Amino acid sequence: MTTKTITVVRDLLATNKQAAAAIRAELRARGILGVNLLSSPGSGKTTLLEALADRFRGRFRMAVIEGDIETERDAERVRAKGIPARQITTGGACHLEAKMIGQALKDVPAEIDFLFIENVGNLVCPASYDLGEDVRLVLLSAPEGDDKPAKYPQAFLSADALVLTKSDLLPYLPFDPRTAAAEAQTIKPSLRIFRISALCGDGVDGLAAYLVEALERLRSGRA
Amino acid sequence: MTTKTITVVRDLLATNKQAAAAIRAELRARGILGVNLLSSPGSGKTTLLEALADRFRGRFRMAVIEGDIETERDAERVRAKGIPARQITTGGACHLEAKMIGQALKDVPAEIDFLFIENVGNLVCPASYDLGEDVRLVLLSAPEGDDKPAKYPQAFLSADALVLTKSDLLPYLPFDPRTAAAEAQTIKPSLRIFRISALCGDGVDGLAAYLVEALERLRSGRA
Repeated sequence: MTTKTITVVRDLLATNKQAAAAIRAELRARGILGVNLLSSPGSGKTTLLEALADRFRGRFRMAVIEGDIETERDAERVRAKGIPARQITTGGACHLEAKMIGQALKDVPAEIDFLFIENVGNLVCPASYDLGEDVRLVLLSAPEGDDKPAKYPQAFLSADALVLTKSDLLPYLPFDPRTAAAEAQTIKPSLRIFRISALCGDGVDGLAAYLVEALERLRSGRA
Repeated sequence: MTTKTITVVRDLLATNKQAAAAIRAELRARGILGVNLLSSPGSGKTTLLEALADRFRGRFRMAVIEGDIETERDAERVRAKGIPARQITTGGACHLEAKMIGQALKDVPAEIDFLFIENVGNLVCPASYDLGEDVRLVLLSAPEGDDKPAKYPQAFLSADALVLTKSDLLPYLPFDPRTAAAEAQTIKPSLRIFRISALCGDGVDGLAAYLVEALERLRSGRA
């Protein structure tokens, strides 16, 4: 990269960090847990949100901000579960930025417990952008291969928990969840690991409990 | 984006286009077909290269330039098939650029028929960067979902052919190859479609024949 490019990128990230800090402060003050979901396209982010909507129904209120390059399809899927969803269509941009979340927050209902942000499907660029979340989840689906943490380290380094998705496909795939988990924890030893199949429901309760604990910590001021 | 950011991105793309044109001219002069492989992480780019290496063995000579953020793993897999492979490790960058290919070309054997370039696993950013290839393949694996072309249009718009991979998993997935193909051809009507399972070998012959035809066109000056 040229010096000019590096300067522009550094300015962008600094501006983003400021906007993210303001969002984090606002969400904490309102007692809302912000959760940023990162992954490749098709790793199961929307399907996980649908499964969590079923788990939380009647117990917790959630809202979703959907990031996509084009289409409102993911927001429509989430709304079909009775969950308010605000679509951000980036029109080409490869990641969400905090200022987009700041704008979208105005359309998010005030009385919620969880704000999920589904990032653009991209295992690279979204990792560099803090969106003001308190919990960052990185999803890795079994069909993607257990070699991905070492090849795309920033997403795993910046996450709080790794969600290994589509575990129902394990019998048909050369994927070893222990290898994936071990590689990810080599990059970030404190990374929590969850293995789920959102389609079958396996493992979703454990992940939901982890999020509820994080919400309780935030509300007791221990976040 | 700010005006400054837009200017830097425009300058980058213009510089890239110049470098790509030089590479294309060089490859055509040497009678080599350049093929750029784009997809999400884990869609099966390396596995496809392994399958093509088996198909072309004794008939055509190929070399591979591997793009990854970290690790030499993909290059090692390709070398294990007896194919010369040059790894480019981008160290964080989300796509390959033509100048990286220009540098790597110096290490590629002169006497080859096909030069495959495996891009960084990312369905967004690599689509904007011409690498001087004559054929661009976009891969979409069955587990990613048939809704991806509409959500990530640029990759499909810029490609010559769509390779639907991991067709062996179709019995276990809510994926309709006809939907994926129809959506992709709505974006780009001339897009050729191939359905393969590189693991089982299904469909690889058809794709190999398409590449051989493109090579023959290039050598007869009809590219």
